[in-house]
Amino acid sequence: MPCHHDQERKDEGIVSDVPLILVVEDEYPLQGILEDALAEAGFGTDILSSAEEALTVFMGGTKKYKALVTDVYLKGRLSGWDVARRMREADPTFPVIYMTGAAADQWASQGVPGSILLEKPFAPAQLITAISQLLYVGSPPAAPG
Amino acid sequence: MPCHHDQERKDEGIVSDVPLILVVEDEYPLQGILEDALAEAGFGTDILSSAEEALTVFMGGTKKYKALVTDVYLKGRLSGWDVARRMREADPTFPVIYMTGAAADQWASQGVPGSILLEKPFAPAQLITAISQLLYVGSPPAAPG
Amino acid sequence: MPCHHDQERKDEGIVSDVPLILVVEDEYPLQGILEDALAEAGFGTDILSSAEEALTVFMGGTKKYKALVTDVYLKGRLSGWDVARRMREADPTFPVIYMTGAAADQWASQGVPGSILLEKPFAPAQLITAISQLLYVGSPPAAPG
Amino acid sequence: MPCHHDQERKDEGIVSDVPLILVVEDEYPLQGILEDALAEAGFGTDILSSAEEALTVFMGGTKKYKALVTDVYLKGRLSGWDVARRMREADPTFPVIYMTGAAADQWASQGVPGSILLEKPFAPAQLITAISQLLYVGSPPAAPG
Amino acid sequence: MPCHHDQERKDEGIVSDVPLILVVEDEYPLQGILEDALAEAGFGTDILSSAEEALTVFMGGTKKYKALVTDVYLKGRLSGWDVARRMREADPTFPVIYMTGAAADQWASQGVPGSILLEKPFAPAQLITAISQLLYVGSPPAAPG
Amino acid sequence: MPCHHDQERKDEGIVSDVPLILVVEDEYPLQGILEDALAEAGFGTDILSSAEEALTVFMGGTKKYKALVTDVYLKGRLSGWDVARRMREADPTFPVIYMTGAAADQWASQGVPGSILLEKPFAPAQLITAISQLLYVGSPPAAPG
Repeated sequence: MPCHHDQERKDEGIVSDVPLILVVEDEYPLQGILEDALAEAGFGTDILSSAEEALTVFMGGTKKYKALVTDVYLKGRLSGWDVARRMREADPTFPVIYMTGAAADQWASQGVPGSILLEKPFAPAQLITAISQLLYVGSPPAAPG
Repeated sequence: MPCHHDQERKDEGIVSDVPLILVVEDEYPLQGILEDALAEAGFGTDILSSAEEALTVFMGGTKKYKALVTDVYLKGRLSGWDVARRMREADPTFPVIYMTGAAADQWASQGVPGSILLEKPFAPAQLITAISQLLYVGSPPAAPG
Repeated sequence: MPCHHDQERKDEGIVSDVPLILVVEDEYPLQGILEDALAEAGFGTDILSSAEEALTVFMGGTKKYKALVTDVYLKGRLSGWDVARRMREADPTFPVIYMTGAAADQWASQGVPGSILLEKPFAPAQLITAISQLLYVGSPPAAPG
Repeated sequence: MPCHHDQERKDEGIVSDVPLILVVEDEYPLQGILEDALAEAGFGTDILSSAEEALTVFMGGTKKYKALVTDVYLKGRLSGWDVARRMREADPTFPVIYMTGAAADQWASQGVPGSILLEKPFAPAQLITAISQLLYVGSPPAAPG
Repeated sequence: MPCHHDQERKDEGIVSDVPLILVVEDEYPLQGILEDALAEAGFGTDILSSAEEALTVFMGGTKKYKALVTDVYLKGRLSGWDVARRMREADPTFPVIYMTGAAADQWASQGVPGSILLEKPFAPAQLITAISQLLYVGSPPAAPG
Repeated sequence: MPCHHDQERKDEGIVSDVPLILVVEDEYPLQGILEDALAEAGFGTDILSSAEEALTVFMGGTKKYKALVTDVYLKGRLSGWDVARRMREADPTFPVIYMTGAAADQWASQGVPGSILLEKPFAPAQLITAISQLLYVGSPPAAPG
């Protein structure tokens, strides 16, 4: 779709104020791809490179984020599993999506209830669908379907 | 994606005859954005500005609609909650999506079973995902997951 | 199971203070059967004969109810559909179960999201399973599974 | 629970006419245990020893069954997988539960959508819960949760 | 149901070898009530008083358990959250049920995906239904319904 | 979105090695439309014209496919129902999506558990959403939500 449409999407109408996604990813090429995929789908993004920064921004509460999208292995002391747990302590219904290649098998023990894990490689559409689903009213952490 | 591709999508192949979505929205700028988002995803749309018109078209039955996408607060006597209820009386499995800013907290008491509510601001991708999910064979109105 | 066990169940341990279910049913024989089935499963019950009484008790808030079990056709002006809607306005996550013979086809238009409808005749076990499922942490009104 | 209560359950009230479950099981000891478990939960049962008899009774349509509970390996030419498929051809929303020890791994390829498989050994409560869930209005065959 | 039937249930037929549930609970009165409720539903139980003992038995692997039912606050260093995480590391699809009064609000951050939390006070039937559901083939750890 | 972005998507980053979808479709115009829709969403595709070829490629195991997307009526002896069943025998959790116009009513008897059926005409977005959902860790084949 032409870029100026993207602009319209972001500047007015249903998304006069776009839903903001908090992304934690420390690989720069990935940051760009994620930002493009999310922007094209109509989401705004704040991308941070470490768990610590992400928690600071989230706890600061100056912006209202709709969901967390986090890599599992991150530079620094905290993993994506830790970030999600801390955010869920502050907001028990906060939607969480993990992205990982190697750590998918840890989801069943380390993931939070009602989260979604995207195993790399994944298509941008998988991320968009996952976020969209978790944002429905009524879907926060649920007992297994 | 290039527009002529959209054309192809609409004129032949899997969507030689595109799935039609009935949209009830009375704000003109929103109508355009919704129509663009739905067309780009491969859906056809009939957009009406009032609940009364929408019900007339739906009950007329000249076209087969696949789903309802409705704003909650509408000009005129009837709300989006009323439109959905009337359509479900005629077709108990008709997929329903509500869009609202202020009225999200009313969904739990006014929404129909198996409906989805999109809280404004939402991304176009959320609407597309919601419609797509409700169109699977076997899903609409379900006991809670 | 021996009755004195039921007593134990109600008087101590996990259910020292049993989960209370609010039942709205105006046929006396049914009241007894519902009360027996719920007591045997370990639930306490307050059974009322009209929507009006049920709403008064619920809104009074002197007791904390875990779920509503209501017949659809009731003596008086209000139906089970109305009772559930009013209670959901006060508590958007309140679990709701409808029991009906004739009105099952109205659920898709008159039921609240995430509710369960038991079509008569149903087995007591269906009621117990329905209540149990709606009481899991994490299951409040959800988009269709 | 005292037997006379079972009687009451079966003879009047909510279950004046009890929900009937069609059971296909060719081992006599199992037949008795299944019948007891279902009766105690408030269900009526017709138990048949072969797929052929079950299909004859089902297609005859003289009684309205609420669900099928079938063993997978049966005497005769047809398996439980076949029985369920034939019944679903006649009634696409008919609830299906399979019981099996050895054949659980075949469910993903041979089971029908929205069915439940109980792996032996299972507790009677698992059967009752499975049937109860499949009888909710709105649940039968659904896309994956 | 007559006790000798319970016996039959445990000693032969569909449950010739009953499904075994691993229960971690350090309050003795509760242990008895849980054991009774599970036995009556047709489940066998091994009840342990500490997380450490439970992990030793589970990791020993001499018995095959079908599910974990654990209190959250336990004597000793480890909580029910820890027990479940360790067991999921060993078996990523192991069904988990938590029982708690005070710690329900921690589930969203400390629970494992696809687990169920029963908030005290709960009815025995809620525990039986929860276990039964998690034992269906195909259900445990799932993305949100 | 500009085509060179599509290229980036396919050649590097999160999808350096894109998720591969196995498509079975014998109508050439449809093949192109499906390939475009999938590529644009970030999926790679191998499109085959017959069930036999698809099974040969799948069983050969030289490539790891993430999901099957198959038409129901195919040239040759085998239908899409057959293809999915064979693949599920080899991989019980393999995600399956059927596309059909005429055969939708057969899904309840011929489809595999946890599969999704897209009724023609459908929008490309419905296919993308369906695949995306089935690729979440933890979801495919599930008991009904």
